[in-house]
Amino acid sequence: MRIVITGGAGFLGTRLARALLARGTLTDASGTTRAIREVVLVDLAPANDPGDGRVRVASGDLADPALIERALTSETDTVFHLAAVVSGQAEADFDTGMRVNLDATRALLERCRRLTRPPKFLFASSLAVFGGTLSDPVEDGAPLTPQSSYGTQKAIGELLVYDMTRKGYIDGRSLRLPTVTVRPGKPNKAASSFASGIIREPLNGEAAICPVGEDLRLWLSSPRRAIESLIALHDVDGDVLGPRRIVNLPGISVSVAQMVAALRTVAGDAVADRIRFQRDEAIERIVGSWPGAWELTRAHALGLAADESFEAIVRAYIEDDLH
Amino acid sequence: MRIVITGGAGFLGTRLARALLARGTLTDASGTTRAIREVVLVDLAPANDPGDGRVRVASGDLADPALIERALTSETDTVFHLAAVVSGQAEADFDTGMRVNLDATRALLERCRRLTRPPKFLFASSLAVFGGTLSDPVEDGAPLTPQSSYGTQKAIGELLVYDMTRKGYIDGRSLRLPTVTVRPGKPNKAASSFASGIIREPLNGEAAICPVGEDLRLWLSSPRRAIESLIALHDVDGDVLGPRRIVNLPGISVSVAQMVAALRTVAGDAVADRIRFQRDEAIERIVGSWPGAWELTRAHALGLAADESFEAIVRAYIEDDLH
Repeated sequence: MRIVITGGAGFLGTRLARALLARGTLTDASGTTRAIREVVLVDLAPANDPGDGRVRVASGDLADPALIERALTSETDTVFHLAAVVSGQAEADFDTGMRVNLDATRALLERCRRLTRPPKFLFASSLAVFGGTLSDPVEDGAPLTPQSSYGTQKAIGELLVYDMTRKGYIDGRSLRLPTVTVRPGKPNKAASSFASGIIREPLNGEAAICPVGEDLRLWLSSPRRAIESLIALHDVDGDVLGPRRIVNLPGISVSVAQMVAALRTVAGDAVADRIRFQRDEAIERIVGSWPGAWELTRAHALGLAADESFEAIVRAYIEDDLH
Repeated sequence: MRIVITGGAGFLGTRLARALLARGTLTDASGTTRAIREVVLVDLAPANDPGDGRVRVASGDLADPALIERALTSETDTVFHLAAVVSGQAEADFDTGMRVNLDATRALLERCRRLTRPPKFLFASSLAVFGGTLSDPVEDGAPLTPQSSYGTQKAIGELLVYDMTRKGYIDGRSLRLPTVTVRPGKPNKAASSFASGIIREPLNGEAAICPVGEDLRLWLSSPRRAIESLIALHDVDGDVLGPRRIVNLPGISVSVAQMVAALRTVAGDAVADRIRFQRDEAIERIVGSWPGAWELTRAHALGLAADESFEAIVRAYIEDDLH
């Protein structure tokens, strides 16, 4: 198996690569399980080379066709398309969001059409395809109602992935991720960046600002669970994914107050007291438009598991990422 | 008011221009009703100049930015975007469909962002955004479930129009047209071309082939009603159109057998007997995936009227177009 991961220097991309290399095999579009021979990490910043002979690093702007030509070979079996301009940035800079989230996705799909065999194409979509007045929980099969440019671009990506799968150009799968937390490292321009920051910064001895009210409910997944789901849904037979090739990945519904309480339980008052509340309307408008929960019927039928609790998510972060 | 009509040499575009010129006024994005000073007819084929001083003809490939630059001026108040590669052609030639239905729509929207004032943007969408297993009638607000590349491209257009309206770049409205029949002239590459052909050809003394079974139900509008709705929904206040800026235009649900019977009633046995049935799977698959009906609740609330009957549609064709 020759695998390409866009966003391969990012948080999820790095973990996904590590999990795939450890696993050693994946199931191709014809249903055959084969050894992983190559993992190409594509990103704007050069990915850290993990010192594994199977890894190739390709860095540059994904909207540049030359990078896509270099990253994918005629023998590419699978593309995990994780790269994106995040929600807050796509909202503030419409053109950059369109160029990366729409144009680069399209260019990648067009390149996939010209490979020797239609590859598997795993598209990281998002809960941001939903917004506005939503049923609670959001039903499997609910209409696309994005309320941000990021969500719109992800919704368009899902439509393209579906149509190109229908045409037989790719074996596509669109996987809607909950807000993935707790992410290590620095804050980013995602509107949901605080959902990691209010846990990560206090645990690292720093103050954190929470830009939304404590009643806001978020739909969350740990990185561990998200990666497990991505790999499981890569290997599953396409027909199992239903007519739209879309899966809402499992999550848990947690209010900001519950997040703070969990941090308090796990790490104590001194840590939890490092969070200050200071409203940011732009962030509140975007994150507040997202679902607080969606149905798990389909995810469970596909054998995907949600996290046990937000406390378990905090503990997993401490175990995996807190040094 | 300075108005641009893409597809301005086409059947609907020509009629729309005629109706607008006769009317003389339209309501702009600020709610002011103003005299129509210019109607620019943009199309691949040069539009017939109706000899009205207000009309300007701009011909060329809509995917060519130079044409868009020439057609729109900084003072453009309204774009009626009717141009499209039709369903059958977009399915057979994926690249041409994407280039015109997606890329040109996008380029047009980007041009609109750079005008002096955000213009009204009327996007002709289609019942083809729905497909597969549908509720009957399809509900207002039903999910986008296109089963053709044409429908996918229209669905993407709706998402772009909505997001750019939300951003304040345009005052957009996406209007989903039923199958518009009876069209004069020659058959085209629309999968639904037969819905005009089986009426038009027999009335013109020619044989017609019906490529679908007589039980298939179609959702139909006369050209008259479609044009009335386009103009009414141009002038209505944007807030009335609801959060998605999408309206399903009214139609009537008619089986092919009922269409033939109506032709028989209006024009007699000799005419109706000119229809032969000869299945075409490609056409049947596309048209059969479309809704046979959708709810009229919202369309009625907006004051839009459907045709009285298919007989009335046939009579309107004879009155307007049969020479």
